[in-house]
Amino acid sequence: MDILPHLKELSRRTPSKILFVVLDGVGGLPREPGGPTELAAARTPNLDALARKANLGRLTMVYPGFAPGSGPGHLSLFGYDPLIYEVGRGVLSALGLGVDLGPDDVAVRGNFATLNPDGTVADRRAGRPSTDENRRVLAKLREHIKEIDGVKVELHTESEHRFVLVLRGAGLGARVHDTDPQKTGVPPLEARPHDESDEASAKTADILNKFSALARQVLADEPKINGVLLRGVSKRPVWPTLGEITGLTPAAIASYPMYRGVASLVGMTPLDVEIGDDPDAPRGKLAAIKNNWSAFDYFYLHFKKTDSTGEDGNFDEKVHKIELFDELLPELLALEPDVIAITGDHSTPSVMKAHSWHPVPFLLYGPYLRNDAATRFTEDEAAKGALGDLHGTNVLPLLLAHAGKLQKFGA
Amino acid sequence: MDILPHLKELSRRTPSKILFVVLDGVGGLPREPGGPTELAAARTPNLDALARKANLGRLTMVYPGFAPGSGPGHLSLFGYDPLIYEVGRGVLSALGLGVDLGPDDVAVRGNFATLNPDGTVADRRAGRPSTDENRRVLAKLREHIKEIDGVKVELHTESEHRFVLVLRGAGLGARVHDTDPQKTGVPPLEARPHDESDEASAKTADILNKFSALARQVLADEPKINGVLLRGVSKRPVWPTLGEITGLTPAAIASYPMYRGVASLVGMTPLDVEIGDDPDAPRGKLAAIKNNWSAFDYFYLHFKKTDSTGEDGNFDEKVHKIELFDELLPELLALEPDVIAITGDHSTPSVMKAHSWHPVPFLLYGPYLRNDAATRFTEDEAAKGALGDLHGTNVLPLLLAHAGKLQKFGA
Repeated sequence: MDILPHLKELSRRTPSKILFVVLDGVGGLPREPGGPTELAAARTPNLDALARKANLGRLTMVYPGFAPGSGPGHLSLFGYDPLIYEVGRGVLSALGLGVDLGPDDVAVRGNFATLNPDGTVADRRAGRPSTDENRRVLAKLREHIKEIDGVKVELHTESEHRFVLVLRGAGLGARVHDTDPQKTGVPPLEARPHDESDEASAKTADILNKFSALARQVLADEPKINGVLLRGVSKRPVWPTLGEITGLTPAAIASYPMYRGVASLVGMTPLDVEIGDDPDAPRGKLAAIKNNWSAFDYFYLHFKKTDSTGEDGNFDEKVHKIELFDELLPELLALEPDVIAITGDHSTPSVMKAHSWHPVPFLLYGPYLRNDAATRFTEDEAAKGALGDLHGTNVLPLLLAHAGKLQKFGA
Repeated sequence: MDILPHLKELSRRTPSKILFVVLDGVGGLPREPGGPTELAAARTPNLDALARKANLGRLTMVYPGFAPGSGPGHLSLFGYDPLIYEVGRGVLSALGLGVDLGPDDVAVRGNFATLNPDGTVADRRAGRPSTDENRRVLAKLREHIKEIDGVKVELHTESEHRFVLVLRGAGLGARVHDTDPQKTGVPPLEARPHDESDEASAKTADILNKFSALARQVLADEPKINGVLLRGVSKRPVWPTLGEITGLTPAAIASYPMYRGVASLVGMTPLDVEIGDDPDAPRGKLAAIKNNWSAFDYFYLHFKKTDSTGEDGNFDEKVHKIELFDELLPELLALEPDVIAITGDHSTPSVMKAHSWHPVPFLLYGPYLRNDAATRFTEDEAAKGALGDLHGTNVLPLLLAHAGKLQKFGA
């Protein structure tokens, strides 16, 4: 359900500050039955001390059994039910590449494909080319296709067979069906608007069909990458911002484009972070939060490596990344936020090498806590916590309530 | 979600009896980290004995983080989702004063205000006058304004700057915006219907504007209280009753007008309670329930003082009120209800001196129980209970099920 309209009625501004830490994909699984998870195996004296004082619980971001992508996982934590607040695949991919999207721009996720001489699809992923190969071919397309019917065409490599196409121009709609037929042996579909009377989307469809035809001409000599399939035609959604809904002044401290992008979708201000050697930039993030502590009242602080090590299937390295966060924690606590919460946007068990649906531990520290039996920030201990089992969208109201920013509901 | 239509399909009448005790605001917080809550500090041998035999769980009445008012908290416990079944502020205030509202009457919550000579609002609460001062000024208004355009005007003191205005007449609508501008330095707003074509609400708006103007004339000589701001224009909602939905014959045993009023909104019969010295009237309530035991099959029994002592911030006195209930419990058990449930309508931790969002312990005793580890009716023990974490609206179906009053869902 959408709780945001109710939050808009009940929220009030106060000077209290909220620090909300997301350790991406931090939830895990034991390597062997009865063994420790990554969080349980990690040596985390600072997190342990905080967990003993805090209240714990577990979060499901979308629905039991649903492994969330980064977009939906974060939207849920920000209070936007991902089953209601949908973001198109084109927009999410563009955000992940740090591509700015204006309100008129259309983003499309592209796949390189191999087409047979008769025009039917032979391989929907063109044999999974290397990312370097993707860059080479995309440069060729970029050289030949700069504009179609006055609309600027922008192309960005994502990885392997994946790229992002951005159309920049006026009067473009985004209610357009995919051209990917989702199977081989048939030709790519024509791009078509959902509704023929929607002229703006018909215009976009027309440009996409011209783009596909031009791409086939430019790539006619390529042995494998000789066609494109287009999906997820979308515009940046226009939603009420966190500031409009709650009166918060929210800042995002993240170094990876995807997370800065999703945070900006809900109206957070992404702070500049000095990256240095490590793209996760823990020191840069700490500096950013310290330098901006007085200017905002809600800080979303994101760390990525707990997810990417899990995706790599590297249990020990994920443990290590958790321990690195533990070392930073005292500096964050020294800022003395009124409310602090720590969780992940989903689980990424190393044994699965993928996002999973397992609930994520949630730690909440603030002035109005119950007692609970949880003594560590782990999956097992979180199950003993006073907060119980919650949905990701419950986090925002709880943070607001503990920060004294929610008025009573009804008389 | 609204479970009532489903309950209507599944409910059946049986002779079994349900006793449902609400200890207002009974949930609490520890005074210091690790310390006992009010419930944990209380000496409650009878509740403890019942808790060891019963099943426990925890209830959230509206949504995590939402501190419920008394109206929404109770509606949830009665099965009416408060995010769906809304009651206007005017109606709730009138119910709280024990003012009867017919289906045609309109209730409005009024605030006394101080207006500047130019008509702008100087103080939205007129310097928070004493309740006696409120009575004096309201008597003056009552003397001069008895009727407007054939509609009877009724005025009731609530407290301090707050009063209730009731309009009694035919053809009145209640879809009217507030006149309270919610800030100072601007004039009160004109009362306007939500929809100009809604003639009944336009008529109400017109009468409210005339009332505001008359009030300014009558109060022209008053130094502080020289204007009124009107909010929460509403009519008593017309909902399916508990009897219509479930076949229950429900009785309400409560001494405070608000709770008798909310119970009557859902079709309960409020029983006469002899008040005596203590407005919470425990002996009067026991007599009422005993005298009417054969005439009803669902008894909502309300005690207020666990909330008011919490609102006062008096931890020890709240503990004492819990202990007083414990002393009454054997007499209630002696009635041998088939199902007994005990909970609160929200938490009112003494340390917060206010309603809070924290889940409330819920105790259920009946013939079909699981085993559980909870040994006392406290926040911590309830978290170990077999019932788990539930929503307030889950209570009614559980009571019906344990009382054998719910048929199988589907074949």
